[in-house]
Amino acid sequence: MNCRLPNSSDPLLFTPGPLTTSRTVKEAMLRDAGSWHFEFNERVKWIRERLLSIADLSRSDGWEAVLLQGSGTFGVESVFSTSVPPDGKVCVLANGAYGERMGAILGHLRVAHTMLPAPENQVHNLDLLDRALSSDPAITHVAAVHCETTTGILNPIEAIGRVTKRHCLQFVADAMSSFGAIPIDCESGGIDFLISSPNKCLEGVPGFCFVIARRESLLGNEGQERSLSLNLAGQLRGFEKNGQFRYTPPTHTVLAFEQALKEFEAEGGISARGARYQRNHSALLEGMKRLGFKPYLPPSVQSYIITAFHCPADPRFEFSEFYRRLSDEGFIIYPGKLGCANTFRIGNIGHIFEADIRALVEAVGEAIETMGVRMGAEAAAEMKS
Amino acid sequence: MNCRLPNSSDPLLFTPGPLTTSRTVKEAMLRDAGSWHFEFNERVKWIRERLLSIADLSRSDGWEAVLLQGSGTFGVESVFSTSVPPDGKVCVLANGAYGERMGAILGHLRVAHTMLPAPENQVHNLDLLDRALSSDPAITHVAAVHCETTTGILNPIEAIGRVTKRHCLQFVADAMSSFGAIPIDCESGGIDFLISSPNKCLEGVPGFCFVIARRESLLGNEGQERSLSLNLAGQLRGFEKNGQFRYTPPTHTVLAFEQALKEFEAEGGISARGARYQRNHSALLEGMKRLGFKPYLPPSVQSYIITAFHCPADPRFEFSEFYRRLSDEGFIIYPGKLGCANTFRIGNIGHIFEADIRALVEAVGEAIETMGVRMGAEAAAEMKS
Repeated sequence: MNCRLPNSSDPLLFTPGPLTTSRTVKEAMLRDAGSWHFEFNERVKWIRERLLSIADLSRSDGWEAVLLQGSGTFGVESVFSTSVPPDGKVCVLANGAYGERMGAILGHLRVAHTMLPAPENQVHNLDLLDRALSSDPAITHVAAVHCETTTGILNPIEAIGRVTKRHCLQFVADAMSSFGAIPIDCESGGIDFLISSPNKCLEGVPGFCFVIARRESLLGNEGQERSLSLNLAGQLRGFEKNGQFRYTPPTHTVLAFEQALKEFEAEGGISARGARYQRNHSALLEGMKRLGFKPYLPPSVQSYIITAFHCPADPRFEFSEFYRRLSDEGFIIYPGKLGCANTFRIGNIGHIFEADIRALVEAVGEAIETMGVRMGAEAAAEMKS
Repeated sequence: MNCRLPNSSDPLLFTPGPLTTSRTVKEAMLRDAGSWHFEFNERVKWIRERLLSIADLSRSDGWEAVLLQGSGTFGVESVFSTSVPPDGKVCVLANGAYGERMGAILGHLRVAHTMLPAPENQVHNLDLLDRALSSDPAITHVAAVHCETTTGILNPIEAIGRVTKRHCLQFVADAMSSFGAIPIDCESGGIDFLISSPNKCLEGVPGFCFVIARRESLLGNEGQERSLSLNLAGQLRGFEKNGQFRYTPPTHTVLAFEQALKEFEAEGGISARGARYQRNHSALLEGMKRLGFKPYLPPSVQSYIITAFHCPADPRFEFSEFYRRLSDEGFIIYPGKLGCANTFRIGNIGHIFEADIRALVEAVGEAIETMGVRMGAEAAAEMKS
């Protein structure tokens, strides 16, 4: 499948998730599966194996893939809640809302932590990290976000992991919006826990998350977990005991994910999916620049997952009207999430293609024109006059 | 709709969830909705209002309905994690696995608690509760399960709540498998928190849960919650702020629930749904007794939600074979969960009807006959000979 069904009347989602999925992924949900039934549990087993295989990892090397109910945030919390010992301390690298959220999780869990912030338009500084880890022997874990969808910045996750490993600490990588489209080497990247979601680059529907973990790290704090629902070690033990989720799984969502993984493989795996998103991103950037929009990030740190654009300076630009006009044409974009800049965001991931991006850009041009918004040089000239 | 689609090839689920849902409920998932989009948020708002209306409660009287990602267990944990103050203590009434699970949740959360157990075939003793509350002034919350699906026993939830209120304590009611089919009076029953799931008597699909709560109780411990993901007060504040789930919602599951609630109302609400389940239960009991099966519970405490039956004493009865034979015919039943008795369970809830129950009973009779299992008097006669 390389295009959308022509009869679809749904808007296209240019967001970091929930995102647009294929018709066939959604149709996999037209079944009621018994969560105790062996057929369903075979599917869960297959999914867990495929996830490891996508990450180029294997159980025989000590890796596990664990599915957990809830959104990606639940997955991040489950890792901290499960793996950080009572006297542990987490160093959190943050250059956006999702890094900050890790700090909020740790605060709620009453887990000691220290924040290592970076500006939203800069990747993390490895020397700073190295020094922070050297100066605080209480730190047991380092945590960072791979693609920070606040801006779309791509942090050097494997390099961060290698610094972490030089200090013999555990490393938690939030790869929510990158896994499946950007290759990640967990082994050489020193990753102990990688958290992601079916509803990002793997193009399933939302309803659960998954964690790829070194078994040793996952079970290292067993018996001292801070939550029953979010006990990731307990969840693994449940799968090992009888192949089942410990508590009612979102069965329909799981069936959709099975189908999504089949379509992911049919497309050609990480490289093909990444290449499609890159084409989407290039078409978007080219088209939006032509209209006069400026991306927030420099190209050197910009991922092809999601792109933040500055809102035009012209006061005639009002985001809510812009959003509504695009929505009326069947294009859902995403508001900004930045502390320091007035931006909006457009996602390149999901079951969307270059033609969809071109259609979106055309609609953006029409919206701007109808709203009478002056862009770039035109706006500057008007302001002078 | 009063019968299943004839072309459905899916097995029927006679389980306490995931359960069989209507085709139209599943078809509502054939759409990708943006979780930030106003259309989706209008649907969420409508669902929250309908849930209060089903419970015969209103926001103007201080009640709120909050949706939360994850299974029902996540909802129960969210209530304890959110509402019990640091020096609080919970008295848990337990006569089955779900009561016991509340204790496990509190243990993981390091919340002080005391268990008040009852035998699995007996409802809770109100005098014992009254004495326990009198003798321990540290107790701040009481928690109990309405329909304990371990056995199908129906606990007197409102009477328990009234004892709790005499002691001026908060009351947490797990109404997971009863809400929507058995009337519950939260006001007169002294309930502060009622937890349930779309995937039980309301016949949606699994993927989130909901809590109906007195606003005052929900927000009473604000700022001291033990989890970010499971922070129910934060979740309410999120809905109030911008109509959105704080973190990615299971959008497809939410759309299915909207449709399920419409079908619930079209059927005639709690009384009609309860009446259908009662007919299912009566047909099941009558048919199974005719085949020689004995229900585990006395009729006085048996709900019409799910029924536990003793496994036949004949050693030729092996549950796994029995299960497989029924599954081959398209009927999924549920294993037992009892500590002290060898049972299996059959659910009466979901999009199933008397004709489905009769077809199941017929298949049970055929399975027993093929397996050569002797029942009741026949078995007794054989053992004597």
